[in-house]
Amino acid sequence: MHVLIFGAAGMVGRKLTEHLAHSGRLGGSEVTALTLLDAVPAEKPAGFSGKLATASLDIAEPGAAARALAARPDVVFHLAAIVSGEAEADFDKGYRINLDGTRHILEAIRQEGIKSPYRARLVFASSIAVFGAPFPERIGDEFFNTPLTSYGTQKAMSELLLGDYSRRGFLDGIAIRLPTICIRPGKPNKAASGFFSNILREPLAGQEAVLPVPDTVRHWHASPRAAVGFLTHAATMDLAAMGARRALTMPGLSATVAEQIEALRRAAGEKAVRLIRREPDPVIAKIVEGWPRNFDARRAVQLGFRPDASFDEIVRIHIDEELGGKPPVLR
Amino acid sequence: MHVLIFGAAGMVGRKLTEHLAHSGRLGGSEVTALTLLDAVPAEKPAGFSGKLATASLDIAEPGAAARALAARPDVVFHLAAIVSGEAEADFDKGYRINLDGTRHILEAIRQEGIKSPYRARLVFASSIAVFGAPFPERIGDEFFNTPLTSYGTQKAMSELLLGDYSRRGFLDGIAIRLPTICIRPGKPNKAASGFFSNILREPLAGQEAVLPVPDTVRHWHASPRAAVGFLTHAATMDLAAMGARRALTMPGLSATVAEQIEALRRAAGEKAVRLIRREPDPVIAKIVEGWPRNFDARRAVQLGFRPDASFDEIVRIHIDEELGGKPPVLR
Repeated sequence: MHVLIFGAAGMVGRKLTEHLAHSGRLGGSEVTALTLLDAVPAEKPAGFSGKLATASLDIAEPGAAARALAARPDVVFHLAAIVSGEAEADFDKGYRINLDGTRHILEAIRQEGIKSPYRARLVFASSIAVFGAPFPERIGDEFFNTPLTSYGTQKAMSELLLGDYSRRGFLDGIAIRLPTICIRPGKPNKAASGFFSNILREPLAGQEAVLPVPDTVRHWHASPRAAVGFLTHAATMDLAAMGARRALTMPGLSATVAEQIEALRRAAGEKAVRLIRREPDPVIAKIVEGWPRNFDARRAVQLGFRPDASFDEIVRIHIDEELGGKPPVLR
Repeated sequence: MHVLIFGAAGMVGRKLTEHLAHSGRLGGSEVTALTLLDAVPAEKPAGFSGKLATASLDIAEPGAAARALAARPDVVFHLAAIVSGEAEADFDKGYRINLDGTRHILEAIRQEGIKSPYRARLVFASSIAVFGAPFPERIGDEFFNTPLTSYGTQKAMSELLLGDYSRRGFLDGIAIRLPTICIRPGKPNKAASGFFSNILREPLAGQEAVLPVPDTVRHWHASPRAAVGFLTHAATMDLAAMGARRALTMPGLSATVAEQIEALRRAAGEKAVRLIRREPDPVIAKIVEGWPRNFDARRAVQLGFRPDASFDEIVRIHIDEELGGKPPVLR
């Protein structure tokens, strides 16, 4: 099986690549070839015995997606995107990458199928940014899309396009709306959502972190491992059960900041919790107020997608995958 | 006030043009200039004393929308579209006109605003085809968009784009989802929805009509006059009340075929009703099964949109506007 990843150099792309390279399998099939594409060169994963190709490309450049698809991969993961803040700051670039880029990928698959029968599985990483306040406390599977960002608009438009290409039989597509990834590995970043990870990752490493919102703030999370599980399940499940409705909110874990902090306390003790400095930021608090807090992602669960079991598990996954099994703050 | 209409030669476009030319006003303002654009040349309306321009153009041709918008109209009606059947038959053409064409119009308005301050009111004719079965018996304002046609997909994507351009302040847009127009003037057509009008229009004119579905079929209707009312209200209302949610299901009238026939009987007697020939067509019945039957269009009503009062009124409007006040079958 040939697997191609657009956006392989991003955080989720790297986690997915590591998983595929390490296991060597996707569902019941052996991964014999792996093509890693991104705007910047993707790192080559260790331990992959199949055929590996990496290249940098701009999915919005005419012909780029077509050239990438000429190898007719069996499964295409489309994780490439300009992030929310950048899509808001640069209107043209956001539409160019997040909408036109997606359309180029879909169209490249369709054009391959016009040459001779070909119908790739396409897994598209969408976002809960397709929803915008006001919404119910728990957002159901039939709630309408009301994005409040250009990024969310581009994701919602891409979902619709993928649905139509799937309905027409040009490809077999599924769009999965990923929760906020927590604990995001790496350095603290300035994204408004950064603190959800920062307040756990930094204290676990023995570093201070800033909490800009009240403890009562509730949000929707998934570990990097759960996200990889969503992607691989989406790539291998029978999509016939979805009918024409190919966009799906993934089952995250809804938790308050207080619940996050309690999980940190259980994993790394009072010393870690004391590293969280409360520094209310009304600007961030206001942004976060407009974000979804909780979902009733019943359809995804029925279709076999599995959330993290608890916030303790989310913390434990980070300690296992990033900290060699023991948080530095306890060393 | 300068009013520009894309799609002025279509049925709704002609009705809107006649209304504007005849009344000479839109809301509280005088219509001093009227620009009528379509793929085919639009007819010049009688009795308009302002400046009138007509031209044919292809909205999907690069630069065409920009040239049209250079005159900086105050209000733009975007009614231009490839219809559902054609968008399904010609995938590329549907996306070219219904998605790219809409995007060109939005972008042309934005680019005018980049040159110097300009923020047009844009009224976009969307469709209940953004919904696809299965859905509740009455579809509410917060139900999700699940198009089952490329046409419906293109309309839903255009709604999202219009919402984002409005949110960003590039224009002041509203998308209104028109019900099926009934009684559609003109000749019987082969659209799957054609019979809803045919079974009234033809008998009123003393002609036979074919009813391919059972009497119990329920659908969502608006008269051409109500549709013009929706468009002019959308062009003049305060859109601030809509916030970021700029797409709206218009309040139609939900009626069964049996109720339509009863209205025909009251207006034109048994002789007219006897002209309806029942000729069940399982293909049409199957298509119609997937269509919305009824909506709870509460938000539009709260925002001042007014439906037809009854099916009797729908029949009366046709008799008034198209048959000189008396149906031929009674002459």
